[in-house]
Amino acid sequence: MTALPVTGAPPDPVLAIDIGGTKLAAALVSRDGVVLDRARTPTPRTADGDEVARALLDLVAPLVAERRPAALGVASAGPIDTAAGTVSPVNIPAWRGYPLMARIRAAVPGVPAALVGDAVAMAAGEHWRGGGTGSTALLGIVVSTGIGGGLVLRGEPYPGPTGNAGHFGHVVVDPNGPPCPCGARGCVEVLAAGPAMARWAAEQGWPGSDARELAESARAGDPIALAAFERGADALAAGIVTVAAICDLDRVVIAGGVAESGEVLFGPVRRKVAEHAHLDFVQAIRVERAVLGGDAGLVGAARFAVDLATTAA
Amino acid sequence: MTALPVTGAPPDPVLAIDIGGTKLAAALVSRDGVVLDRARTPTPRTADGDEVARALLDLVAPLVAERRPAALGVASAGPIDTAAGTVSPVNIPAWRGYPLMARIRAAVPGVPAALVGDAVAMAAGEHWRGGGTGSTALLGIVVSTGIGGGLVLRGEPYPGPTGNAGHFGHVVVDPNGPPCPCGARGCVEVLAAGPAMARWAAEQGWPGSDARELAESARAGDPIALAAFERGADALAAGIVTVAAICDLDRVVIAGGVAESGEVLFGPVRRKVAEHAHLDFVQAIRVERAVLGGDAGLVGAARFAVDLATTAA
Repeated sequence: MTALPVTGAPPDPVLAIDIGGTKLAAALVSRDGVVLDRARTPTPRTADGDEVARALLDLVAPLVAERRPAALGVASAGPIDTAAGTVSPVNIPAWRGYPLMARIRAAVPGVPAALVGDAVAMAAGEHWRGGGTGSTALLGIVVSTGIGGGLVLRGEPYPGPTGNAGHFGHVVVDPNGPPCPCGARGCVEVLAAGPAMARWAAEQGWPGSDARELAESARAGDPIALAAFERGADALAAGIVTVAAICDLDRVVIAGGVAESGEVLFGPVRRKVAEHAHLDFVQAIRVERAVLGGDAGLVGAARFAVDLATTAA
Repeated sequence: MTALPVTGAPPDPVLAIDIGGTKLAAALVSRDGVVLDRARTPTPRTADGDEVARALLDLVAPLVAERRPAALGVASAGPIDTAAGTVSPVNIPAWRGYPLMARIRAAVPGVPAALVGDAVAMAAGEHWRGGGTGSTALLGIVVSTGIGGGLVLRGEPYPGPTGNAGHFGHVVVDPNGPPCPCGARGCVEVLAAGPAMARWAAEQGWPGSDARELAESARAGDPIALAAFERGADALAAGIVTVAAICDLDRVVIAGGVAESGEVLFGPVRRKVAEHAHLDFVQAIRVERAVLGGDAGLVGAARFAVDLATTAA
């Protein structure tokens, strides 16, 4: 807590919640972004939305009993509706337009609460305490089974008016590319997400099945696996250069399971960004690995909660 | 001045300057965006940078003598370097890295001054007093001999850390498209700027020579001219949908000589935006004509000056 003025007891922490298709996580986080205590549980496989909510609230209750939070932030897989406080995560079919924020507010009354998309939270978390510190215009990208993104502009998280800003996965980089489930062709996601890269490699005769194996094959020098990462990296780089031209980015942080592939991804991405970048101010962009790992969503949700606590104080 | 509290005399106006390849313009503008007095002169055709600056300062001097401005804003054709205060407008070859802000500060000492790109100024002006009022996330596009763009995010102009945000003309919408002088292929500018549309039509056998004639031919039902606007509109729409997905736009305002073509441009652009937009929040976007015409740069520059005056007060 050394970054804050000491006036007796440290200020109350905030509560951060991170909702994904495989796990629910919650944490008490200090005002300067340090996780003080945490809990997690698998996301229930059920058609009953209230059952999922109960699992989440059971996770949260002991943390709130331990220290009453000054505010709380919820990062959720999307789509979400920040105005309505409802969530419809693709991988939690029990929640469709589910009034999550109303449930949480009823369980933790009198505490200001914010809802934010998981990729926006990741960008905010990496900017606050991770690979994006010091950036004034940051794009955070999550490359996993899908591709998400979030922006930090003027040093502040930018969710946009509807909470959907930074929708990197559906930037079209090749209008003649493969069809995407969203209805467009050649979106970044349909070219560079883990399953997309593995599927393309399999079509070329590679015998593996997923992105983790694809990274192992690429590290072993398999030419198809290397070509698959090259193809995915080209799509990521084209999208990055576009967002850089629009938002005048100074940095990009890439997180997610596929980012854990390391240099077989980051080498080609950095090379392709240099190839695609023709404008001076775009050439200066840095592409970094995320450093917070699985904590990025919690830390980012906490960042929004700290803002709320500061505004409310 | 009814929008401001009346405390005797109205507050001092601001000075706005708009620098283009064909004309230099300056105006005294009230704190709520009304042009009070203005002056303009052709941009001197000379290799002597100081001669161009003298023409500008001769234009400004009587306005400053009339009412000392509280602050001043300069909108300039690019490239510009907002940090260094230098400008290198493509169409003013006498100015390359020219220390314009130092010259202006010496001529109008003690007055806070801001430098901003012309397309950012246009977006700021249309947001403040034009077709973008009420928008919280606006893209302003200038379609003329080139294509520029500027953003207003969270209701505030967003020039970005280097002043280059909103670089719409060089968003790549077709990586296999025609080569652009910037070094990329299939940029919006090389597909949809006035000369680009006219050149494509001429290659198909249309007998005219420029975008104004092309609009006349399109209004008269010429199939090649209509196809040229369709092709340009498709590129503009693809770029608009990309920026909307990244910035969560609620509105787009299009200005510039080609925008004066009216419905032969806006009809296809709106139709193509609807075709390209697959995400819910992108489908809600509105595409409007700019309303400030030649005043947009001055009004936008004034908006930045008013912010400076307010901060300095």
